[in-house]
Amino acid sequence: MIQINTSRRVEVVDITPDVQKEVEKSGIKDGLAVVYTPHTTTAIVINENEPGLIEDIVFVLDKLVPRGAGYMHDEIDNNADSHLRAMLLGNSVVIPVTNGKLELGTWQRIMFLELDGPRSRRVIVKVIEG
Amino acid sequence: MIQINTSRRVEVVDITPDVQKEVEKSGIKDGLAVVYTPHTTTAIVINENEPGLIEDIVFVLDKLVPRGAGYMHDEIDNNADSHLRAMLLGNSVVIPVTNGKLELGTWQRIMFLELDGPRSRRVIVKVIEG
Amino acid sequence: MIQINTSRRVEVVDITPDVQKEVEKSGIKDGLAVVYTPHTTTAIVINENEPGLIEDIVFVLDKLVPRGAGYMHDEIDNNADSHLRAMLLGNSVVIPVTNGKLELGTWQRIMFLELDGPRSRRVIVKVIEG
Repeated sequence: MIQINTSRRVEVVDITPDVQKEVEKSGIKDGLAVVYTPHTTTAIVINENEPGLIEDIVFVLDKLVPRGAGYMHDEIDNNADSHLRAMLLGNSVVIPVTNGKLELGTWQRIMFLELDGPRSRRVIVKVIEG
Repeated sequence: MIQINTSRRVEVVDITPDVQKEVEKSGIKDGLAVVYTPHTTTAIVINENEPGLIEDIVFVLDKLVPRGAGYMHDEIDNNADSHLRAMLLGNSVVIPVTNGKLELGTWQRIMFLELDGPRSRRVIVKVIEG
Repeated sequence: MIQINTSRRVEVVDITPDVQKEVEKSGIKDGLAVVYTPHTTTAIVINENEPGLIEDIVFVLDKLVPRGAGYMHDEIDNNADSHLRAMLLGNSVVIPVTNGKLELGTWQRIMFLELDGPRSRRVIVKVIEG
């Protein structure tokens, strides 16, 4: 398990080294790694960790699912946008593991998206042999 | 396999208990559950099952991919929006299984999204040991 | 591994037969196939391969994440839209395998989305028994 403490409402955290460590701990050389967030207002994506692009992600989410746009769920918890963004992005990624290493492309990084922080979060890494 | 009969064009069905039953039937205590829809106008997501939020999902899909917005595919089948929404949301989820249970977070539910109902649908649950 | 050479900036390539061939090469009769792109400006989706719908996908991506809309990353690489679209769509799909065959629904096809071509690309297919 990976522990993450976020400090802003929307924040992108590169967890690639943590996931690689979990793969090594598993001892599995060949198979799949599933990176799974058990929260409903966070997401996991794989892409490039470039500071400008990180700002662009936040900009696009704001445009596609603006905060406080008259959502019903906001009457209960004021974070409907966080849930809706999480659904669009997805709560897990699956990565092939070969020779004990995540088979990531040159520019690929595993990124945790906090969408309703700051909070204390956790991410489950399950490695399957095969 | 899970059988679902929907009664509206767009409908969200909580299938968490059905998926948990399939995990128990598999006898597998530790591994992965893949929840997979074989249809091209439905989706599977994991999020909170709160009635207001369910309405918000429908509202956001209407805004992002409105029905009948001049799509080419509508000339053939009049459900381009259903296909396009399905692609954005995804047709499967993967959930870690531990001690014979889906490792869902406190608020997480597995939800089937009908996007071109009403119809008779099925969902495949594949459980892999590891 | 599947090799793909694209010829346009945005292009949809049906890779279903290639993925089925990889499943056969693996010799695995029952389990999961993971179809994974290691690039950060491509995506994998499962949906219907109908020419009108393919045009609609391009149209919707243009509307949701227009090219050159003032993104920060464009100052570095001029392909922010490609990365952002890739994140929304996802970089892998998981398909159940039964009796040596991909358990795809009647209209389902596995489609590789080039979002920053033309380029030479590769897709990893990992088959897991279980």
